Amino acid sequence: ENDDFTLGGLLAKESATTQCQSRGLIHRLRVRSPYTPSPDLITKLRDYEALHQRCGPGTKSFNRSMANLELAFNTEGRHEVDGECRYIVWLAHSGLGNRLVSIAAAFVYALLTRRVLVLDGRSALGELVCEPFPGEVSWLLPHDFTPLLTLTLNQSSPYKFGLHLQQGTLLPSVRDPPEEDRKSLFHSSSASQPSSLFSYIHLAHDYDFFDKLFFCDKEQASLHQIPWLFLGSNLYFVPSLYLYIPEFRQELNRLFPDTDAIFHHISRYLFLPSNSVWSWIMRYYDAYLSKASQIVGVQIRSFVFPPVVHPHLAQQTLRCAEENNLLPKIAEVEGRETPLSPRNATALLVTSLLPDYSEQLKKLYADHPTETGEVVSVHQPSHEGHQNTQAHGHNLKAWAEMCLLSFSNKLITSPMSTFGYVAQGLAGIKPWILTAAENGEAPSSACSQLVSMDPCFHAPPYYNCDGNKGDDTSKILPYVKHCEDVEWGLKVFPHTPA
Amino acid sequence: ENDDFTLGGLLAKESATTQCQSRGLIHRLRVRSPYTPSPDLITKLRDYEALHQRCGPGTKSFNRSMANLELAFNTEGRHEVDGECRYIVWLAHSGLGNRLVSIAAAFVYALLTRRVLVLDGRSALGELVCEPFPGEVSWLLPHDFTPLLTLTLNQSSPYKFGLHLQQGTLLPSVRDPPEEDRKSLFHSSSASQPSSLFSYIHLAHDYDFFDKLFFCDKEQASLHQIPWLFLGSNLYFVPSLYLYIPEFRQELNRLFPDTDAIFHHISRYLFLPSNSVWSWIMRYYDAYLSKASQIVGVQIRSFVFPPVVHPHLAQQTLRCAEENNLLPKIAEVEGRETPLSPRNATALLVTSLLPDYSEQLKKLYADHPTETGEVVSVHQPSHEGHQNTQAHGHNLKAWAEMCLLSFSNKLITSPMSTFGYVAQGLAGIKPWILTAAENGEAPSSACSQLVSMDPCFHAPPYYNCDGNKGDDTSKILPYVKHCEDVEWGLKVFPHTPA
Ligand SMILES: Nc1nc2c(ncn2[C@@H]2O[C@H](COP(=O)(O)OP(=O)(O)O)[C@@H](O)[C@H]2O)c(=O)[nH]1
Ligand SMILES: Nc1nc2c(ncn2[C@@H]2O[C@H](COP(=O)(O)OP(=O)(O)O)[C@@H](O)[C@H]2O)c(=O)[nH]1
Repeated sequence: ENDDFTLGGLLAKESATTQCQSRGLIHRLRVRSPYTPSPDLITKLRDYEALHQRCGPGTKSFNRSMANLELAFNTEGRHEVDGECRYIVWLAHSGLGNRLVSIAAAFVYALLTRRVLVLDGRSALGELVCEPFPGEVSWLLPHDFTPLLTLTLNQSSPYKFGLHLQQGTLLPSVRDPPEEDRKSLFHSSSASQPSSLFSYIHLAHDYDFFDKLFFCDKEQASLHQIPWLFLGSNLYFVPSLYLYIPEFRQELNRLFPDTDAIFHHISRYLFLPSNSVWSWIMRYYDAYLSKASQIVGVQIRSFVFPPVVHPHLAQQTLRCAEENNLLPKIAEVEGRETPLSPRNATALLVTSLLPDYSEQLKKLYADHPTETGEVVSVHQPSHEGHQNTQAHGHNLKAWAEMCLLSFSNKLITSPMSTFGYVAQGLAGIKPWILTAAENGEAPSSACSQLVSMDPCFHAPPYYNCDGNKGDDTSKILPYVKHCEDVEWGLKVFPHTPA
Repeated sequence: ENDDFTLGGLLAKESATTQCQSRGLIHRLRVRSPYTPSPDLITKLRDYEALHQRCGPGTKSFNRSMANLELAFNTEGRHEVDGECRYIVWLAHSGLGNRLVSIAAAFVYALLTRRVLVLDGRSALGELVCEPFPGEVSWLLPHDFTPLLTLTLNQSSPYKFGLHLQQGTLLPSVRDPPEEDRKSLFHSSSASQPSSLFSYIHLAHDYDFFDKLFFCDKEQASLHQIPWLFLGSNLYFVPSLYLYIPEFRQELNRLFPDTDAIFHHISRYLFLPSNSVWSWIMRYYDAYLSKASQIVGVQIRSFVFPPVVHPHLAQQTLRCAEENNLLPKIAEVEGRETPLSPRNATALLVTSLLPDYSEQLKKLYADHPTETGEVVSVHQPSHEGHQNTQAHGHNLKAWAEMCLLSFSNKLITSPMSTFGYVAQGLAGIKPWILTAAENGEAPSSACSQLVSMDPCFHAPPYYNCDGNKGDDTSKILPYVKHCEDVEWGLKVFPHTPA
C-alpha cells in the first residue's frame, strides 16, 4: 500500500523507472503523505499531460506556433493563432528554491488557463529533475529557441505586460497607482506596441504596480488570447490567484480541496530528481541516513553574503527541538551506563552553507548523553560556503539536500527561505520555523510550527482590484492570510469552511 | 566464546564492570585477537598484581619507603631498604601516544625487574584510563608525592643515572663514548653523589650516550638494589631490553613467545578507557559506526606545527586502499542503478588533527558510486587543529580516537606515529603504513603492511655493550631489527626460530 509510487493517482501510471529512477522509488523514503490528490486534480493532470503531448516542444503545433512567433518579430500584420496550443514560458531567476516554487506557481497558472508550461532550456534544470510529463515531449525549450535569445525579457523589457498597461495601449482604462506605489514604478526607456502573439509577464520580487495587475480580473482576461506568455518570476504567486479572479478561485478550490497542500502535490508531481542526482541522494542516504529510526531535518539559512555564523543558531535549534520534543533531550549529568545495543537512533540532517552549526550540534551530542540513552548522529551533506547558482555541482547539492530533507520525519527550517519551502512541500510536513533574530539577539521563543504547509508568497500586491485602491489583501478570503514567517507575505491556509 | 572479557586470562577475573565499565565490554567491539597470552605471562601478571597490592601507593610498605626517601633528601647516612618493594616511577613526557607506549615499556621493565610501576599523578592519566590492577591500590602516585615536587627530574637532573656513570661515581670503569656520540653528550651543570635510595633514568628522545648505558648488563645490574627509580621517557624502549642483558632476553622470550605481540597484550591489559571516555566512545560508536559491516580506520598524522594539509594524502590513502583491497573501489563511470537496500556498508573512520582529509574522502564517496555498489560512509570524530597535550578535553578525544581506531577491521596509519602504534596494538592488527613523502612529493608506492605489530623504538642506542664500541644493534638478534617505518629505529619482529 505504501508502495504506490503514483501517490494516489497524482503521477501517471506509466512504467515507473524506465527513464527516471527516482520515480518508482522516492516515495519509499518519504513519510506517507496525509494528503490525497482530489479526483479533479488527477483528471486535470491527465488532461494536461495529453495537452502537453500535443503542444509541447518538438510537436507540429509547437513548431508552427514558434515559426509564427519568429515571423512576428520581423513582419507586422495578422498571424495565424492555434486555438489549442497556448504557452507559458518560464524563465529562470534567483536560487534553486525560488526557481522551483515559481515553476510550481507557473504550472498552477498553466492548469488554470489551459496553457502549456515550457521552461527556459538554459536553466540547466533538465540536469536536476526528470521530465515530469509522460511521453516523448519535453517541457524544456530547445537551446536555440530564438525568442529567448533575441528578445529582452526582464524588468525593462519593451514587451512587458505591465508596461503596456501603464501606457494604456492594451486596455482602455488605466488604473491609478496608490500614492505609495508611485515612487517605485519602473520607468522603461522604450516600449513597443502590444503584440497579439506574445507578452512578457514580470512577476519577480522587484515588479511594480502595473506588473501586479496580472492578478486583476480584466487585466488577466486580456492575456487569454495571447499564445505566448513569457514569465519572469522567482515567486510563489499562487495565493494572489485566489483573490480577484472568480474562475481561478473556483477552479483552485475544485482542484485543491486541501488548500494548504497545493505546492505539496504539485512539487511531488513535477520535481523528481534526475538519475544523476538520485544516485547522489541514494549514496548519501545509504551511507548516513538509512539505518536511522527517524530523520530530523534542520535547514539553517543565512541571507547575508557571504554568510556569517550566528553563534546562537545551533542553540536555538536545540531549544526548538527540546521545547517541542523533536529530538532526544541532552542530559545535564553524565552517569547512566551506556547500553551496548542502543534503542532508537535519530539522524539529525543539517543543511546549511556553513559547517559550523552541524559541528556544534555534533559536538553536543558526542559530548553528552541523552536523557533516554537514545542515539543522535549529526550529518551535513555539504557546506558550500556561499550561494553559487551558476555552478552545476552547487545546484546539484542544493537540490539533493532539499530531497534529503524531504525524507525527514520532522523539520526545523529557517524563515523566509524558499529552499526550506521546497523541502517541506516535498516532505508533506509542517516544519517548525526558527524565530528570526531581532537586532541580532536570540529571540525569546525558539520556533513555532507552521499552520499551513504551503509556501509563502513573499511579494503579494497590496491592491484591491475591485475597489481600485491600495489594500491589505489578507482580509479578502478567510484562508488566504499573512504568512507565519513573513508578515507582509500572503499564503493559502487550510480551508476551514464557515 | 567471543565474550571472554579476560582475553584468555590476560585480565584478572574480578567482577567485570563494577568500577570500570569498559573492562567487561570493550572486547566485544574489537576484532578477536589472533594472539593468546602465554601461561607465563598470565602467571607473571597475577604475581605482579599481588605485589602491587602489597607495595603500591597507600600501602604500609609504600609509606615506609616514601618516608625513607624523603629522609634521604635531608639527612645522609644509611637508610633501611624494604627488600620486596622497589619502584619505577613513570614521569609524563610528550603526546598521549608517546606516553602510553613508554608506560607499556616501563611496565615490561617492571615485570622483568620485579618493580612496582607507579605513575606521576599529575599526568591526568587517571582521568583517561581505568586502574589496571585489581584491588584497592592505585597505580597513581598521590598528588603531593614530595619527590616529584621537589627534585629536578629531567635531562639536567643532578640525580641522573647517566650522569653518575659519566662521572664514574657509580661504577669503577667508565666507558668511552664513540666519536659520533661525544658531541651530543649532555653537560649537566651540577651533579650529586649517587644515592642508594633513588636514581633518575632519562630514556627520552634527547638522551645521551651515558643515559643509554641503561641497556648494558653491568650498568643495569647496578640499579638493582635502588628502591626508587624515576623514569623520564617517551619511548617504547622494549626492543633494546633484548640485546645485552641475557636474563631480560630469556624472560621476555618466556613471557612473550609471540614476539611482536608484546605491546598488544600489555596495552590491552593496562589501558582500558575510563568511564567518562568510555561514554564518549560508545556515543560516537553507536551514532556513527555500530551499523557498519566493517570499519576501516585511517590515521593521518602531520608532524609539522601547526599541521599543514598535504594535498596528496587523501589520494594516497585511497590508492593504498585500492591496491590492497581495503575499501570498495570507486567506479570510473556512473551508471548502474543504485540498489535501494545496499549490501555491505563500510565505515571509514578517519582521525587527524585537520578536517581536510576526511572531507576529501567523504566527497569522493558521495560523488561517485563504488564498483560493487557497496556503501562507504566517512567519519571523523574530531579535528583539533593542533596538538594541545595540556588540555584534558583534547587528550580525551585523542584517547577516544585511538580506542575507536582499535575497533577497526583494517588500519591505514602514518609512519613514525606512536598514536598509530597504540591504535594498532589495541586493535591487534598489522596496519598498512602510508609511505612517507620524499621532498614533499607523493611516493610511488602508496603504503605497505607492517610485518610486526609491535611499536618501533624510535631512538635506540647504536652501541655494542659487549664489544664496547659503536654498532648497529639491529644485527644482534634475528628478530630485533630496524623498523619498517623508521629506518634507524629498532623493533621486535615475529620470532621465527632458526
Ligand atoms: N547545498 C546547499 N545550498 C544552499 C543552502 N542554503 C542555501 N544554499 C544555496 O543558496 C541558494 C538559496 O537560494 P534559494 O534556493 O532560492 O533559497 P532561499 O534564498 O533560501 O529562498 C540555494 O539554491 C543554494 O544554491 C544549503 O543549506 N545547502
Ligand atoms: N584527537 C586527535 N589528536 C591527535 C591526532 N593526531 C595527533 N593528535 C594530537 O597530537 C598528539 C600526538 O602525540 P602522540 O600521541 O604522542 O603521537 P605521535 O606524535 O604521532 O607519536 C596526540 O596525543 C594528540 O594530542 C588525531 O588524529 N586526533
